[in-house]
Amino acid sequence: MPELVNLTDVEQAHRLVGERVHRTPTLSVTSIGDELGLQLWLKAELFQRTGSFKLRGVLNALLTLPADELRHGVVSMSAGNHAAALALGATAAGTTATVVMPAHASEVKVAATRRYGGTVVLTDRPLVEVMGEIAESESRLVIHPFDDPRIIAGAGGVGLEFVEDAPPLDLLVVPVGGGGLISGIAAVFKERSPATRVVGVEPHGADGMTRALAAGAPVTIVPSTLADGLAAPFAGDTTFPHVRELVDEVVTIDDGAIGPALRMLYERAKLAAEPSAAAPLAALLCGAVAAEPGSRVGLVVSGGNVDLARLPAFFD
Amino acid sequence: MPELVNLTDVEQAHRLVGERVHRTPTLSVTSIGDELGLQLWLKAELFQRTGSFKLRGVLNALLTLPADELRHGVVSMSAGNHAAALALGATAAGTTATVVMPAHASEVKVAATRRYGGTVVLTDRPLVEVMGEIAESESRLVIHPFDDPRIIAGAGGVGLEFVEDAPPLDLLVVPVGGGGLISGIAAVFKERSPATRVVGVEPHGADGMTRALAAGAPVTIVPSTLADGLAAPFAGDTTFPHVRELVDEVVTIDDGAIGPALRMLYERAKLAAEPSAAAPLAALLCGAVAAEPGSRVGLVVSGGNVDLARLPAFFD
Repeated sequence: MPELVNLTDVEQAHRLVGERVHRTPTLSVTSIGDELGLQLWLKAELFQRTGSFKLRGVLNALLTLPADELRHGVVSMSAGNHAAALALGATAAGTTATVVMPAHASEVKVAATRRYGGTVVLTDRPLVEVMGEIAESESRLVIHPFDDPRIIAGAGGVGLEFVEDAPPLDLLVVPVGGGGLISGIAAVFKERSPATRVVGVEPHGADGMTRALAAGAPVTIVPSTLADGLAAPFAGDTTFPHVRELVDEVVTIDDGAIGPALRMLYERAKLAAEPSAAAPLAALLCGAVAAEPGSRVGLVVSGGNVDLARLPAFFD
Repeated sequence: MPELVNLTDVEQAHRLVGERVHRTPTLSVTSIGDELGLQLWLKAELFQRTGSFKLRGVLNALLTLPADELRHGVVSMSAGNHAAALALGATAAGTTATVVMPAHASEVKVAATRRYGGTVVLTDRPLVEVMGEIAESESRLVIHPFDDPRIIAGAGGVGLEFVEDAPPLDLLVVPVGGGGLISGIAAVFKERSPATRVVGVEPHGADGMTRALAAGAPVTIVPSTLADGLAAPFAGDTTFPHVRELVDEVVTIDDGAIGPALRMLYERAKLAAEPSAAAPLAALLCGAVAAEPGSRVGLVVSGGNVDLARLPAFFD
């Protein structure tokens, strides 16, 4: 088994990225908490630069790498949040980023990636193939969106701030795509708050982590979910053992559960979140995750990059 | 001239309401700031309990009053934010609230007022008449939505937190309805940060403060604006002298300027704000308020209570 990312790694990453990332607020949301009979805290990571937690891991990876390895730039593949983060992170690290995105990627996310200085290559072909070709022909270094201990350690900064800014939590619920975010957060809570139950949530249609846990190893899936940020085609070789060892449970929810949770985040918490970021609240609302009445529950609101035009489809 | 609310009054109010209100986050929003060529900080008061700044003033008023005066409960009139705040505030102060609301008030705001324990009276008649009748027949104490020094001192807490949590600001822009919010905030900045230019923004169709400044005294108007939170029928006898003495300038904007600003708050700042709360950004975007390139600008995002169904009308 590979060595897992631990609290020290996360603390180092948090110091390294420093003020290049925002310390995002932890919000007490009494109106939703009262309705659910819980005490609720939201880690509002949607206010992170580039609109999601992704910048934390990207910056840690880029700032850790020797300048020599970055001299020809970096390349990656993404439908959205990792793309914008890599673009801004590369600029901050003094290099350049090319991101391969699907031809149907949202215009908002393509525009954001370009605004942050990235080169976008749109393609109908498998992203990984095009990325490999660019890495080869331009000698660019591949930065994986999630399956990398430096990405995990950087993402863990979300957990570090949350454990410091919220009261001791009985339950913490985190969205799961490829598993980078929950791996880093769980590494923090395992040491700093071992009594907290850490639960991951993924859509039925993108249940790569659930399947990996059942099979004992990552398996490849064809994701199908409206929560585009969680549509990872597999749990990572690096993230999977973190989740198996450090996370108490991973549950799945129907896409249909996301709409009411997303609406509640907008109407009651006043957060313009993206569908993926509503998965933890959705899991509470639909009962996929059970919380003791009156207990202290933390939810990670992981990002806010969504086309406003798409929202009515969720709310109706 | 009546004595103006000052920094000491605001500090007292802030201590008195204490943890009954949230200290709301101050957010640095680099993506919008970069686009405007400014350094931008948003006071995210939409995360205040009941979804707007109103609870701060209401609680200060209710906690200042002798219990004897509250024994028959309180009554007020509101189309929205003051209603929910008064309902929750009355419960916190151990009394009851009745709020007269227009028959066409948004269902979300009526529902919120009831959820916080308030009694709602819907009417097609002038709100002030119905409020007077209820005050008379039930011996309830009238709590004015804005024209009261205790309300102003409470609202000033927004300014106190902003001046403490943001770097020294060159310019601060605040929405103006009846003027309670900007009066309290200006009282703080006048003493704590006198170099900051404090500017108020109101819609052309609800320009009661602009007209009062021109006339030298409050005048009654018939407000017509999509920014329902700013549709006050007059500047108050108490708020008007505060604005005249403490605020550098009040500008007006077209309702049409609000849509693009509101969209930017959602898409770029990830804030599910209400139209009124977008007025300061709208004033920057349309040039009604000019800021020096590179200067430090603070905007107050005053609330987030809006029917999601109404949003497409703003965004299209």
